[in-house]
Amino acid sequence: MRDFDALFDAQLDALRAEGNYRWFAELERRVGAFPAAAHHGQGGRDVTIWCSNDYLGMGHHPAVIDAMCETARAAGAGAGGTRNISGTSRFHAELEAELADLHGKEAALLFTSGYVSNWASLSVLGARLPNAVILSDALNHASMIEGIRHSRAEKRIWAHNDPRDLEEKLAALPEGATPIVAFESVYSMDGDVAPIAEILDVCEAHGALSYLDEVHAVGMYGPRGGGVAEREGLMGRVTLIEGTLGKAFGVMGGYVAGSASLVDFVRSFASGFIFTTALPPACAAAATASVRHLKASRFERMGQKRAVARLRDALDAAGIPHMPNPSHIVPVPVGDPVKCKMISDTLLAEHGIYVQPINHPTVPKGTERLRFTPGPSHTEADTAKLVSALSALWSRCALARQVA
Amino acid sequence: MRDFDALFDAQLDALRAEGNYRWFAELERRVGAFPAAAHHGQGGRDVTIWCSNDYLGMGHHPAVIDAMCETARAAGAGAGGTRNISGTSRFHAELEAELADLHGKEAALLFTSGYVSNWASLSVLGARLPNAVILSDALNHASMIEGIRHSRAEKRIWAHNDPRDLEEKLAALPEGATPIVAFESVYSMDGDVAPIAEILDVCEAHGALSYLDEVHAVGMYGPRGGGVAEREGLMGRVTLIEGTLGKAFGVMGGYVAGSASLVDFVRSFASGFIFTTALPPACAAAATASVRHLKASRFERMGQKRAVARLRDALDAAGIPHMPNPSHIVPVPVGDPVKCKMISDTLLAEHGIYVQPINHPTVPKGTERLRFTPGPSHTEADTAKLVSALSALWSRCALARQVA
Repeated sequence: MRDFDALFDAQLDALRAEGNYRWFAELERRVGAFPAAAHHGQGGRDVTIWCSNDYLGMGHHPAVIDAMCETARAAGAGAGGTRNISGTSRFHAELEAELADLHGKEAALLFTSGYVSNWASLSVLGARLPNAVILSDALNHASMIEGIRHSRAEKRIWAHNDPRDLEEKLAALPEGATPIVAFESVYSMDGDVAPIAEILDVCEAHGALSYLDEVHAVGMYGPRGGGVAEREGLMGRVTLIEGTLGKAFGVMGGYVAGSASLVDFVRSFASGFIFTTALPPACAAAATASVRHLKASRFERMGQKRAVARLRDALDAAGIPHMPNPSHIVPVPVGDPVKCKMISDTLLAEHGIYVQPINHPTVPKGTERLRFTPGPSHTEADTAKLVSALSALWSRCALARQVA
Repeated sequence: MRDFDALFDAQLDALRAEGNYRWFAELERRVGAFPAAAHHGQGGRDVTIWCSNDYLGMGHHPAVIDAMCETARAAGAGAGGTRNISGTSRFHAELEAELADLHGKEAALLFTSGYVSNWASLSVLGARLPNAVILSDALNHASMIEGIRHSRAEKRIWAHNDPRDLEEKLAALPEGATPIVAFESVYSMDGDVAPIAEILDVCEAHGALSYLDEVHAVGMYGPRGGGVAEREGLMGRVTLIEGTLGKAFGVMGGYVAGSASLVDFVRSFASGFIFTTALPPACAAAATASVRHLKASRFERMGQKRAVARLRDALDAAGIPHMPNPSHIVPVPVGDPVKCKMISDTLLAEHGIYVQPINHPTVPKGTERLRFTPGPSHTEADTAKLVSALSALWSRCALARQVA
């Protein structure tokens, strides 16, 4: 027999040598106690999570959990089939209607994850629109990159958040091309926000389809949680809005929203939609409850904004640098992979604070960072404790302070 | 503005003209009543589902539902992050250990779906093993085909379930190639079963990695529900076993099991694993309960086998043809897309029986069929009613009978 394990181990060893091998922290979140959780690698002791994508704590909201449990008790644990073969329920249909309404679109389509929604939708648009060329922001998420790659459409990368560069790339396309412009609203590692209106101006001038990923924004921005495009009154100008149910909505699954024809097109041709078991009805019902709640309630978004301001103020007071941005993500630059990992490890071991280090390849070398996502459940005491611990580590690692 | 909807509509119209446009039946399964469900397109009236992939009804098992609800109440509705960034819980770790044990492997790795597990794992193996060539059974599932395509590895298609053809294709590979042989145990549309031992003989003779998809077999075959490879004492010889939690286990999610190095390799490099929100802890706990139950209980598998025998006997008595195979899937050939759809529509409208028509492109033209999946909850009365209705339609459509 060929020794396949030796082939695998060689590549894993290379990853270890680079310092990029990953261990997963095993956490047990507890309803009512979030952001506290039991950390099983630490003998089950309590830690405070500072890097969850359950940005608003909706995964622990009673209405969401009740919907999940009631639906599981009524309709069972799973869907039992693909959407086409016995797997569609009223809970899927209701969620799709709720999401279409959230974005002011004619229709929406559910996927098993945000990753799959990007991958499957860009795959099918790039593969099936005649002479498609996909113009992709340089910092787009892996799921978009893989979808574009899978479509085998032509691809042009434009400079991050730069409508002028996009304009130049669009103007240079050959006659007869069908341009698709793919970008995000909130970029998750820097927390910066796209100039959506200017990008849409350029798209419209060149007859391009606009594909906007709002996964880090839905539930978070806009009067009803429709995302940055809702906040800026731009949803009607975006051809396709993609979102997730696994971050601010606190459950799981992804979706796209757009015209009835567009949604029917993706529904009818996307392999990653057709040939997979539907989301459990219980997950769909939980997501519906969460979307409905955040359409009406601004309480969680306001608490979240306060928590961000509180953390940034405390970091300023301690002279700990943090990258400015207009979003809910607070990146603290460290700039060294070893120190970044060490600070994260020490926060966990000595202070019961869990924040994952963000190293290469997730971010470029030299820009290693800690990425904090303050939520409405983080208290003033949590914040004070975090910044005090960080401040001690800043001294220990001889990292530069900044004057606010 | 360019009229994108017109582009989408043109392709949808072509699909309609082929007779391949799909409407989804909106069903509401009810715990305790399965296989009965409310059909919302039929004014909410009761129908009997005959085409669910919840083969054993485990999605409605009290232990599974209890695990889902208890975990949702304790740990929340969602995971809150990727596996690497705050999304791993003890429920994920326990399920992975349970699955590794089920297949007698060192390790297992969870994905959000079986589709993603095939796509992501074949992508990374094909892309990262030096000089990989993937030898793919001609009838492999879309998720495997897309994963192979995405890997950009060389691909050779071998004749369905034909170890001799596989042998020839392996022998013809250039020196230095790393062969990966991808196949399924139970093929879902014909219900036929691969000659796994002979395929493994050929793999071993040529030093090929064997990649076995058991999604339609896990929970169903073998003394502990480990699949066809378990039943035949072959699990130890298969390099990678892929399975799903969304069919016989009744929940959602997919997985691979294999050596610790192989699983760590996929975990560390597969984009579709790394960059996506983890399964909800409640889904993981529900799946663990289901896997554990089916390791110990043969009750559901025995009931399922009786239901298949009962249906096949009743079809024989009525002279309605059914394709022979050794599995749990009972395909009834119709051989005409219009009649196939018409029979399905009439069963639903006049008899409250739901079975989805299987037409091109899921199966080749001329082999259109109804695909029945009898389960332990289908009663003798359900079976009698189904065959009586089918028999009447057989006469109405002037379809050939066969003498048993």
